[in-house]
Amino acid sequence: MSLVDTAISQPTAAILIIGDEILSGRTQDTNGNFLAKKLSELGVNLSEVRVVPDLAQEIVLAINDLRIKYTYVFTSGGIGPTHDDITADAVARAFNVRISINEDAKRILSSNYGDGEKSLNEARLRMARIPHGASLIENPISKAPGFVLNNVYVMAGVPSIFKAMVGSIIPTLVCGSPMLSISVKFFKSEGDIAKKLEEIATKFSDVSVGSYPFSEAGVYGTNVVARHINKDILKAIQNELEQLR
Amino acid sequence: MSLVDTAISQPTAAILIIGDEILSGRTQDTNGNFLAKKLSELGVNLSEVRVVPDLAQEIVLAINDLRIKYTYVFTSGGIGPTHDDITADAVARAFNVRISINEDAKRILSSNYGDGEKSLNEARLRMARIPHGASLIENPISKAPGFVLNNVYVMAGVPSIFKAMVGSIIPTLVCGSPMLSISVKFFKSEGDIAKKLEEIATKFSDVSVGSYPFSEAGVYGTNVVARHINKDILKAIQNELEQLR
Repeated sequence: MSLVDTAISQPTAAILIIGDEILSGRTQDTNGNFLAKKLSELGVNLSEVRVVPDLAQEIVLAINDLRIKYTYVFTSGGIGPTHDDITADAVARAFNVRISINEDAKRILSSNYGDGEKSLNEARLRMARIPHGASLIENPISKAPGFVLNNVYVMAGVPSIFKAMVGSIIPTLVCGSPMLSISVKFFKSEGDIAKKLEEIATKFSDVSVGSYPFSEAGVYGTNVVARHINKDILKAIQNELEQLR
Repeated sequence: MSLVDTAISQPTAAILIIGDEILSGRTQDTNGNFLAKKLSELGVNLSEVRVVPDLAQEIVLAINDLRIKYTYVFTSGGIGPTHDDITADAVARAFNVRISINEDAKRILSSNYGDGEKSLNEARLRMARIPHGASLIENPISKAPGFVLNNVYVMAGVPSIFKAMVGSIIPTLVCGSPMLSISVKFFKSEGDIAKKLEEIATKFSDVSVGSYPFSEAGVYGTNVVARHINKDILKAIQNELEQLR
């Protein structure tokens, strides 16, 4: 039973995290988890996350793979002013569109500096390069905008800015029914409840039923989590699960 | 300049995280970051991370994509005793091999229970189902083994067990030269050092040079990280970077 199965009519999404710093282990990504929770609340089924390096061909390949497969693709990282910020160019290449300075983006960037356009050196202007046909995503933190091209939402990697940009785009998304969940905790190991659990999962075949072992103070246990858009169905599963205790 | 470019002779790797609980946002994955750091130390270039749901066809697709592209594929999750643990079957399907109870795995599992095989109910025996042709990966924590089939290393999702299994496989990996790094901190924004930084990155074109903005107590700054296997090259870059301060 999977997220993909559970609610076939819900919109789907992928998150694409771009950055060598994640793959080197230097940085623990948290943007994926933040957006994953939001998407659950919004009724958008997050179906895949990918992390790729700051390498144009890998970003292009991933974007073209994911944008065909899912309703939405959300990217994180690679839209700053330095040489390793290549996401905007990669997105333009993926869509085979031109990219150039966007006048709206340039005006927004200027507004971030005391002396306006004078501080907009060549490097900062790089952040105003936007693929043709894209709309801007507001950045309430540091102004430099993200952008959306078709179903691909391009956002910054810095967590505070990523979160703010997610806030900017949420009202524009076509959402499904919020994904609800119940969780039942057993002080029994997975192996002791697996058979009954499978019967319940089979009975409620369109519900995602997950089983997660834990160990607390030397005692083994299992958290069972069921997820569905219908609270009555979840209530029924909860009743059955509680009888296994 | 990317991880993939920097050291083309190094082995490469992908991590495949399997589990609805990551995609729902309920759980923040940490196994990826743990292994990413280890691989850097070992001189294995982590080139991609994917997270997919507990859905056989998605796991099979991802494994077949990744195992052809990279030297190693490391998976996390889906090898427990419950109905949602489908990784072993998916790996067998990906390689088009049979899967059945492995006698060595069964013996190891039995040793974990006081009354031996009697406690090995049908659910627990599921953890002894191993694709044909695979070797077992030792699990010092809870015994139930992982396995390796060709270049695909299948490990548990529970972080303590994942880490222990990584410890078991490290001596078996063919590694490259450890990836070294230097980091220089600037109390200047990215836009103010971007031009000079690009010149340095261009001069040392086989080095991964990343630029990461930060904000500390209201002051904006930039961490520049360079990664390469040769410490003399890194020393030379560090000298040039320090002149930008």
